[in-house]
Amino acid sequence: MDDPPRQDDGSPGFSRELLQRAIDNKTKPVGSLGRIESLALQIGLLQQSLTPTMESCQLTLFAGDHGLAAAGVSAYPQEVTRQMVLNFLAGGAAANVFARAHGVALRVVDAGVAGEPIEHPDLIGRRIGAGTRNSSVEPAMTAVELEQALQHGSDLVAESDFDALCFGEMGIGNTSAATLVFHKLLGLPLGDLVGRGTGLDDDGVERKGERLAEAAARTATELGPEQALAEYGGFEMAMMAGAVQQAAAQRKLVLVDGFIATAAAAVVLRLEPSAREAMVFAHRSDERGHAAVLDALDAEPLLDLRLRLGEGTGALLAWPLVRSACAMLNEMASFDDAGVSGPEP
Amino acid sequence: MDDPPRQDDGSPGFSRELLQRAIDNKTKPVGSLGRIESLALQIGLLQQSLTPTMESCQLTLFAGDHGLAAAGVSAYPQEVTRQMVLNFLAGGAAANVFARAHGVALRVVDAGVAGEPIEHPDLIGRRIGAGTRNSSVEPAMTAVELEQALQHGSDLVAESDFDALCFGEMGIGNTSAATLVFHKLLGLPLGDLVGRGTGLDDDGVERKGERLAEAAARTATELGPEQALAEYGGFEMAMMAGAVQQAAAQRKLVLVDGFIATAAAAVVLRLEPSAREAMVFAHRSDERGHAAVLDALDAEPLLDLRLRLGEGTGALLAWPLVRSACAMLNEMASFDDAGVSGPEP
Repeated sequence: MDDPPRQDDGSPGFSRELLQRAIDNKTKPVGSLGRIESLALQIGLLQQSLTPTMESCQLTLFAGDHGLAAAGVSAYPQEVTRQMVLNFLAGGAAANVFARAHGVALRVVDAGVAGEPIEHPDLIGRRIGAGTRNSSVEPAMTAVELEQALQHGSDLVAESDFDALCFGEMGIGNTSAATLVFHKLLGLPLGDLVGRGTGLDDDGVERKGERLAEAAARTATELGPEQALAEYGGFEMAMMAGAVQQAAAQRKLVLVDGFIATAAAAVVLRLEPSAREAMVFAHRSDERGHAAVLDALDAEPLLDLRLRLGEGTGALLAWPLVRSACAMLNEMASFDDAGVSGPEP
Repeated sequence: MDDPPRQDDGSPGFSRELLQRAIDNKTKPVGSLGRIESLALQIGLLQQSLTPTMESCQLTLFAGDHGLAAAGVSAYPQEVTRQMVLNFLAGGAAANVFARAHGVALRVVDAGVAGEPIEHPDLIGRRIGAGTRNSSVEPAMTAVELEQALQHGSDLVAESDFDALCFGEMGIGNTSAATLVFHKLLGLPLGDLVGRGTGLDDDGVERKGERLAEAAARTATELGPEQALAEYGGFEMAMMAGAVQQAAAQRKLVLVDGFIATAAAAVVLRLEPSAREAMVFAHRSDERGHAAVLDALDAEPLLDLRLRLGEGTGALLAWPLVRSACAMLNEMASFDDAGVSGPEP
């Protein structure tokens, strides 16, 4: 409906300026679609196109257990990780429901669930171990395990056909692991980060804070991204980081979910700052530290719905906004096309 | 997948308590889906069902002109209203794009566009006049015109088959009209309400504020809902109010869009407070006064994307969230169904 603008010499082409002009020439007051316009700009820049494509999206759900759960940092028992993997595979979790509702493909990866390997034809087995070690007393994983997890994550998206990728997680104890990663990586005070996770009461939060302070005392005040992941992260978090980094390198749009997914994103941003161009921060989680973390990353999320579930649910709910922004760019008429007058001089 | 809970005597039934229990028993920590859970509760209560339906949605776009535009309160010339009606009918406006992207039906109503009637087979003609009178010097419409507009709006949704209804608007000058309605209806100071509309600069906003103060001085400090509409509203706004009131009476979900749609909703809430049960406030507009108005109405919007376009665009972008909430209730497994453990005692 809307011919792509041409360069000044009449030839078609792409530049940031042409893209911005295409957005500004749509039949609406300049800027009046707010975040939808900035999202359209990001998508166009990412694909270096005035007519980008944003039709298909996939959620990869990584599940892993945490040795730290033994320290009593979660309201739920560790076996819930395994039970939820089965729930994902049966299609009954929130992530399944939202993925179906919005036409997003979903796959489940065992990154390292405690106990015996789960046998299921649809489960993608990439187990690094039966859960991480207890990071309150020793590193969560070895350097070799970290390398394996990053590589698996990368391999899983290396030849993706999807326009956008979401990464979700499941792992009892993983708000604690993410809290420690943020603390060591971004230098944010633990006291600003420790939250209720799946639903701790005040006493539980206090106990969690004490355990995490003990764990944090084990290493230097600040750690580099890979060291922070190895010392305190999780297999699911490391695999997610590998996947995000690879997806960004391929200039796929990455919808960053909540607290734990942001930890993976923060690691990637330290390793490769340009990955930021691919990242859309989907939502501000209700998990206490997420707002501070997003501020530290200078990230403005799309949604603020008091979600604190993980599983990629926030990313899934943001996907229709991403599709809308791309459709705006492709389908909306320009002032010239529609014969609509601009502002009065 | 999830059997509806039964009442204590074993019989199926509906109550708010059963609905809340169904939401709490889904495989997620209680409350962890935030606004999606409160939305599911509202939908279930509205339909009095543990398994409500939220599959179909329609946007009705009301266009009308404003005599007040002659006072120089908009950045755009009045003919843009008519031009945008043609753009809607051709499928090229933002509302068309978002409606297509999210499977929402769209229809366009001429509530009173200036000039000769527009001839188009898809346009629903319900013209009250060729624009309202200039409310800075006289009432925008007569009591008879107001009554006609409310009735047309009501009739247009009286036998609707859609699960949810959005109402959008187009009308150069209508942020001014809405500002005056809010001022008289809610008692909010004009200075807190006057904003940039389609994009006035600082001088333009100052001039708009002066014109609106003159218009406001014409009548008593506070006005009732119908009087406020007749004195300062628009045909599109009045028709929207009639439609919202009727939709709510039929217990259809109403997605309330931005600044102007909220003026129609505010009128309806004064006429019939129980209409609130049907209303979902879709977004917080970037138009300056909207935040204050939503606060005055104790309304928490779903989205905050700095939209200020109108046309129902915010309502359309919120529709996928509404569908998601309903799907959560219908499709998500319970802890019992999925064999997932609850929190530790």
